[in-house]
Amino acid sequence: MDLNLMRELSVSTDSRIVLLVLDGLGGLPMDPFGRTELEAANTPNLDALAAGSDLGLSRPVAAGVSPGSGPGHLALFGYDPLEYAVGRGVLSALGVGSELGEKDLAARINFATKDESGKISDRRAGRIATSDAAKLVDLLNENVKLDGAEVFVTHEKEHRAVAVFRADGLSGALSDSDPQRVGLEPLPVEPTNGTDGAAKESAELANAFIEEADRILADHHPANTVLLRGFGMHPALPKFDEIYELRAAAIAGYPMYKGLARLAGMEVLEEGEGIAGEFETLRDSWDSHDFFFVHVKATDAAGEDGDFERKSAAIEEVDALVPDLLELGPAALAVTGDHATPAKMESHSWHGVPFLLSSEYTLPTGESFGERTCAGGSLGVFAAEEIMGLLMGHALKLNRYGA
Amino acid sequence: MDLNLMRELSVSTDSRIVLLVLDGLGGLPMDPFGRTELEAANTPNLDALAAGSDLGLSRPVAAGVSPGSGPGHLALFGYDPLEYAVGRGVLSALGVGSELGEKDLAARINFATKDESGKISDRRAGRIATSDAAKLVDLLNENVKLDGAEVFVTHEKEHRAVAVFRADGLSGALSDSDPQRVGLEPLPVEPTNGTDGAAKESAELANAFIEEADRILADHHPANTVLLRGFGMHPALPKFDEIYELRAAAIAGYPMYKGLARLAGMEVLEEGEGIAGEFETLRDSWDSHDFFFVHVKATDAAGEDGDFERKSAAIEEVDALVPDLLELGPAALAVTGDHATPAKMESHSWHGVPFLLSSEYTLPTGESFGERTCAGGSLGVFAAEEIMGLLMGHALKLNRYGA
Repeated sequence: MDLNLMRELSVSTDSRIVLLVLDGLGGLPMDPFGRTELEAANTPNLDALAAGSDLGLSRPVAAGVSPGSGPGHLALFGYDPLEYAVGRGVLSALGVGSELGEKDLAARINFATKDESGKISDRRAGRIATSDAAKLVDLLNENVKLDGAEVFVTHEKEHRAVAVFRADGLSGALSDSDPQRVGLEPLPVEPTNGTDGAAKESAELANAFIEEADRILADHHPANTVLLRGFGMHPALPKFDEIYELRAAAIAGYPMYKGLARLAGMEVLEEGEGIAGEFETLRDSWDSHDFFFVHVKATDAAGEDGDFERKSAAIEEVDALVPDLLELGPAALAVTGDHATPAKMESHSWHGVPFLLSSEYTLPTGESFGERTCAGGSLGVFAAEEIMGLLMGHALKLNRYGA
Repeated sequence: MDLNLMRELSVSTDSRIVLLVLDGLGGLPMDPFGRTELEAANTPNLDALAAGSDLGLSRPVAAGVSPGSGPGHLALFGYDPLEYAVGRGVLSALGVGSELGEKDLAARINFATKDESGKISDRRAGRIATSDAAKLVDLLNENVKLDGAEVFVTHEKEHRAVAVFRADGLSGALSDSDPQRVGLEPLPVEPTNGTDGAAKESAELANAFIEEADRILADHHPANTVLLRGFGMHPALPKFDEIYELRAAAIAGYPMYKGLARLAGMEVLEEGEGIAGEFETLRDSWDSHDFFFVHVKATDAAGEDGDFERKSAAIEEVDALVPDLLELGPAALAVTGDHATPAKMESHSWHGVPFLLSSEYTLPTGESFGERTCAGGSLGVFAAEEIMGLLMGHALKLNRYGA
């Protein structure tokens, strides 16, 4: 998406846009002549909606490339996922609900075991119990002292945690300290871009943190050291109000998606319980915002588990709530996913993602919502990055380009 | 294709990829309501394969643009054909089987006739017989002496030959010596980019070669001079092993396609006779490589001759061999062309090229392999450059992008 074009053309109006994301919606037939999860699901409401909608298959990143949740959502929000990379550390920080500011550097932490010779003997500290690790995280937060910087450690699960470093002029161009194999010494964190002064100082900061942690954890064998990896700066994305003139809101049940929405400048609303609860939040906030990103996780989780039936059932649960959504009267409503998660593959995949856009101004081509009706739709196969442009256009929030 | 993305994500695995290229596969109906060469061909095996495959129409270069063999194949191999240009001289050198190294400069040669006043009186030396021209080529190879450079002349046919210059620091930014019309003096070869020192020295080298040739050919009227055109450096393409982690092999009957494959870093295998022989070579080399480019020329040749029936027959010949190919068990198999060569046009054209991708992870949409089933396929109309990404994805040779 050409964000400058969006900036130039966007106008604020009263019309409402809803981007309903069923995570990992795209699927595959279990055998080549069967139906996909979406095709197999009993979705009378989505089918009726599709019969009056523009349909297409969206591609999140590039041909053959399976996207992670970060690039998948960035593309949905209109950002080029190859230009705006979100590092693993940042995504983990968002996932544990860290308050990540624009100057912050994030990294993933593993508690690990170092033997007397200084070599790593266990990269996961014997898969230390979650409750034990949480205490060590508290210990680090209370005792680590860094020169000219703050650090916030948040526990994730078992041996995993996240560190957020806050100071001026940090850089995420840093190598991991994790040697990836046992029997080796931890590596010093180093700049990956040679001569950059910010990276050099950030590396010193990370190494100082590790030194502090070693001192504090010395008596806490097997978790007597930390390994750092996946360094990344908060990606300073241009924000939705500035690009699209939208007062955007996010309704999501999981911290990572809330965090991704916050990166785009959306206000994260307190969501109700489950899919029905999310839809209630949508109704309750209808007057205060003009763009709503609603995230449903259950489809992806079922796909990752290889559970075709459960994925279809999650789609059916959404389908049953579609009439409530339509009653609100969105000017433009997209129903899609951030990527495919075919139960057959038990993982994210590169396949086209079904996309439906309902508005007053559509060119309907199909009778139902499914991968194959979408493949034959008026939008064809297109880049997910274009979805925001389509939504803005259909909601009549874009001025004409040129005379 | 973003080659850096491929470099970042590619992993080596045991799975095998086959890219089966029927040169000039794309066609047109002779009248608008008829069938194309592929649609008219009796292809039970390809149709059965298509019924379980992803289908689409690929576009080699740009809308409305008919590609030559060079850009057509470069796009199939994942290179941007507008970024990686292969000069005519280079293509001719590959076509005659010249061993072209990374420092080499190639140009096409015409034997020509110069009159007493130094003007060109025949640009083709009376279409000199192939056997006579071959002797003159030997004469040049034995007698041309250049300062600090080697030159290798290879005969092509009649008045045409190819020169390959080998030295350090050569450049292909050179103008032709061929004045394009009789009655004019040959032009001096000149740098086309102004001040580039390498081009200046290369121009001097080319002019010295022409001077030497004039001396050696003085008594061989009508072939008493040479005209040089189509200068081009060996394009130093990034190689398949480096981009995709593939041990790639090429099976092709014609030197130009072997040469193009070699540019991409493929190992050119000694091919058996005809299409069946190529498929035998494929079977015999199955264990030693994990990517196979198989090139079939007969479809293009028939299209160029305007022979609709013969083109269909060539497709049927391939169809009959498809079961042997499937028996090998490729993880991902593409059947496509490098461009269209409709018999109706007797030439390469810009039309969409039928594309079929068979793997375990497809979303089938059609019942047969033809231009119109492909147009309605789950891949839509897409850039041929993306084919390598699709093949890598379907063969599970790409890591996920982003967390």
